[in-house]
Amino acid sequence: MEMLYCGICHSDVHLGLNHLGGTMYPIVPGHELVGKVVEIGSKVTKVKVGDNVGVGCVSDACLKCTSCDVGDEPYCLGGKSVHTYNDTKRYDHIGGNQETQTFGGYSGSNVLHEHFIIKLPDSIPLEKVGPIMCAGITMYDPLRHWGATAGKKMCIGIIGVGGLGSMGIKLSKALGHRVVAISTSVGKKDMAIAKGADAFVVSTDEASMATEASSCDLILNTVSADHEVAHYLSLLHRNGTIVQLGLVPTPHTISQVPLIFGRKSVTGSHIGGIKATEECLELCAKHNIVPDCETIKSDKIDWAWEQLQNNKDGIRYVIDITASKAL
Amino acid sequence: MEMLYCGICHSDVHLGLNHLGGTMYPIVPGHELVGKVVEIGSKVTKVKVGDNVGVGCVSDACLKCTSCDVGDEPYCLGGKSVHTYNDTKRYDHIGGNQETQTFGGYSGSNVLHEHFIIKLPDSIPLEKVGPIMCAGITMYDPLRHWGATAGKKMCIGIIGVGGLGSMGIKLSKALGHRVVAISTSVGKKDMAIAKGADAFVVSTDEASMATEASSCDLILNTVSADHEVAHYLSLLHRNGTIVQLGLVPTPHTISQVPLIFGRKSVTGSHIGGIKATEECLELCAKHNIVPDCETIKSDKIDWAWEQLQNNKDGIRYVIDITASKAL
Repeated sequence: MEMLYCGICHSDVHLGLNHLGGTMYPIVPGHELVGKVVEIGSKVTKVKVGDNVGVGCVSDACLKCTSCDVGDEPYCLGGKSVHTYNDTKRYDHIGGNQETQTFGGYSGSNVLHEHFIIKLPDSIPLEKVGPIMCAGITMYDPLRHWGATAGKKMCIGIIGVGGLGSMGIKLSKALGHRVVAISTSVGKKDMAIAKGADAFVVSTDEASMATEASSCDLILNTVSADHEVAHYLSLLHRNGTIVQLGLVPTPHTISQVPLIFGRKSVTGSHIGGIKATEECLELCAKHNIVPDCETIKSDKIDWAWEQLQNNKDGIRYVIDITASKAL
Repeated sequence: MEMLYCGICHSDVHLGLNHLGGTMYPIVPGHELVGKVVEIGSKVTKVKVGDNVGVGCVSDACLKCTSCDVGDEPYCLGGKSVHTYNDTKRYDHIGGNQETQTFGGYSGSNVLHEHFIIKLPDSIPLEKVGPIMCAGITMYDPLRHWGATAGKKMCIGIIGVGGLGSMGIKLSKALGHRVVAISTSVGKKDMAIAKGADAFVVSTDEASMATEASSCDLILNTVSADHEVAHYLSLLHRNGTIVQLGLVPTPHTISQVPLIFGRKSVTGSHIGGIKATEECLELCAKHNIVPDCETIKSDKIDWAWEQLQNNKDGIRYVIDITASKAL
């Protein structure tokens, strides 16, 4: 695929600057790839030359295990899924490039197995698709797994109103649910309501928390800073589930008493698989859901990374690769 | 109802001796009641005089809320469910007795609302029914809630091979599942296998734990002593759920990383409702599942309470009320 756009994710910053350790330099970040098919192998049937396509966070997996079988490639049990960049090519699926490590979408082209290529719906502007395959699917997959795409009306809580939370609010509203946005900062209220939230809770304010006590069937928690998940259990209805999405390394302190007396669950979710990503894109196309994006050229990547570290306004930055080539 | 038998539960010991605080003396313990209907109100349709009936841990609730509506009376939201003993009568459902607090089954008779009376299947010996309505339903309800009664074959882990665990093994086997019994004590192995477990894991032995790594779809954890639930997460398969059943007051330390990368859930479950209890009794009747019981007279209650505090062999003690009256 020839690259056209690549979204910038906050994890690009973490991996690029080795915040978590384990970065394998040289690194080419980018797991929100949007481009055009320029060449296909003889066995490829999913796309043809000229198609607009996307690639998300996972670009290879064993394709043989029980996880891959049901479209949960990110949870591949056959030797782990392969991240689109900063990972080792573990399977023999991708010809063309001779590198042994994966390089991402801050690049001119990429060679991928058709299974991990997604044909893009026509109606979403190409410069806004990228973040759907990361932030979008991260929020859509837990909605799908915990019953929020099955037609039943629910009350969905979204903790954190950044890039992930914004998509969570929009997707949940498109699915017909009542949405409660939850943030430590009262200053996020207007933005959350503008994005579609029906109610807003300041999590540090006991009275505000009480207004939505026991209201949520499902809470998607995007907080990636240290926190105590137990703090949010009071917002869950009986049988409710809170899904942890941020890679918080510090453990939580959880009493089993509220879990028992409310049959409440604490769980987590990784990125979604290819089929779920296709569903998510269809939903976005149908409801005109796009991430709040700002398109930049490659000379502003450093600036964008700084913004991501300092601002939490839910704006996603997308690199215009074609325009960057002309710099 | 005229009382015939009443099972002795470990929580009778805790409440009787005020281990948890909050005991309202005078107390009449017993929430595993078995007896015969001797008189009915004019509007009663569920049972008739002469029927063998049982009553479990919950004997009243609002009967109007969304929990009661779906048969989850123990999770009543309309003012809380009423425990069969050591609780306050909060609703106007039970005539007859003039007490304002509930007294349990270590007694000659009891007056109850028909909703909370269960007509007993003929085929289970009356002296063995009681513990099914406590230990049995405590294990059956999470099996039911988390998909193990829907026909799909699963692998069920049961942590602890005491009174609850024994019923958990038997019920899971009756439902056609593979069962992994898990205990800190290697000495429980023969007993667990005899009760039907397919495999046995010593939870303090890393090599033993490794033999069942990622094998369980659902784990029912009956441990009521302090422990770390995170220790058992390695036994869960992707999308697996561990259900906490014991009232452990000390919190657990849980990292969200294994939850995220395996979509694993930590949850809890209270006693089941009336409809689930009826289903559990039907399953027990169909498969000849009975708790391992020893029948005693009332002069041996103190002794039985000592056994429950010192032994953990999965034996349940049942008071023969008729024989006790003759003492």
